[in-house]
Amino acid sequence: METTAFLDLTLFNWESQVKRMTMTFDSFTDEELYLQVAPQRNRVIYILGHITAVHDMLLPLLGLGERMYPELDAYFITHPDDPEKELPAPAKLRACWKDVNATVLQHFRTLPPAAWLQKHTMVTQEEFEKEPHRNRYNVLLSRLTHISYHLGQLVLVNR
Amino acid sequence: METTAFLDLTLFNWESQVKRMTMTFDSFTDEELYLQVAPQRNRVIYILGHITAVHDMLLPLLGLGERMYPELDAYFITHPDDPEKELPAPAKLRACWKDVNATVLQHFRTLPPAAWLQKHTMVTQEEFEKEPHRNRYNVLLSRLTHISYHLGQLVLVNR
Repeated sequence: METTAFLDLTLFNWESQVKRMTMTFDSFTDEELYLQVAPQRNRVIYILGHITAVHDMLLPLLGLGERMYPELDAYFITHPDDPEKELPAPAKLRACWKDVNATVLQHFRTLPPAAWLQKHTMVTQEEFEKEPHRNRYNVLLSRLTHISYHLGQLVLVNR
Repeated sequence: METTAFLDLTLFNWESQVKRMTMTFDSFTDEELYLQVAPQRNRVIYILGHITAVHDMLLPLLGLGERMYPELDAYFITHPDDPEKELPAPAKLRACWKDVNATVLQHFRTLPPAAWLQKHTMVTQEEFEKEPHRNRYNVLLSRLTHISYHLGQLVLVNR
C-alpha cells in the first residue's frame, strides 16, 4: 500500500472542492453577490470574503508563509455580515479568492507527506504531545468540510 | 511515518461530523423538522431522510453489506421534497439515522486500511485501472463533505 495514497486523494478532493466553489462564485453576477443565502442570513459576497480570509489564514496556521490579505479580517472574520456596511468590491474579492487558493495549493503540493502529520502553529508542543491529531492534516480536513458547508448554503440563493 | 495516520484522521473526522449532524437533528423538535431551510427549499425532515438514505447506500456501495432501509429512497432520493407529500414519521427517521450510522461506523472501524484503496462496487475493474482514485476512500471523503454541505443548510433554519 502506498503511504501517501490517502493524503494524495485528500489533496485531490481539496482541489476539486476549491474549483467547485470558484465555479459557484463565478456563476453569480456582481449584483447577485449582494443576495442573501436565506432571509436575514449572510450575503454571498460575505461568504466569498469570509472563505478567502479563512484560506489565507492557512498560510500562517500551517507555517507556510505570511498572510496575503489580512485586511479582509475586519470585514469577514471579526464582524458578522451587515447589509448596511460597505465591503471591498466584488472584482477585488474575486481576485483575492483565486490568488489565495493558487498560493495555498502550491504549498500543499510541495509539503512533504510527513510534514502534514506535524503540529500546526496554533498548538504548543506540550498540547500536541497530548493531542497528536492536532496536526496540519487535520486542519486540511476541517477546511475541506468548511468549503462544502458554505457550498451547501450558496445553492439556496433565490436568483 | 505511520501508514494509516491519514486514514485514521479522516475516520476521526467522519465520526465528529456524524456526531455534529446528530446533535443538529436532535436540536429540532418534531414540529420544527417540517421547517424549510430557506423559502421553497428542502425541509429539515427531508434532509434527515435524504442523508440517512445516502449513508445507508454506503453499505452496498463499499461492499460492506445489504441496505438497511431501502424504502427511504422513494421519499428522499428519487423524488425532490414536496411539502404536500406525507413522509415517514420523525421518530422513525431519527431512529434510522442513528441505526444506519452505527452500522456504517462499525464497518469503517474494521475495514483494513488497504481495502480503502480498493475499488468501490459501482466501478468496473476496467474503469478502475484507468481511474484508480475511484476507491472506497474517495467515497468516504465525498460523503464527509456531503454531511457538511447539509450542516451548512440546517444552521439557516429560522426557528
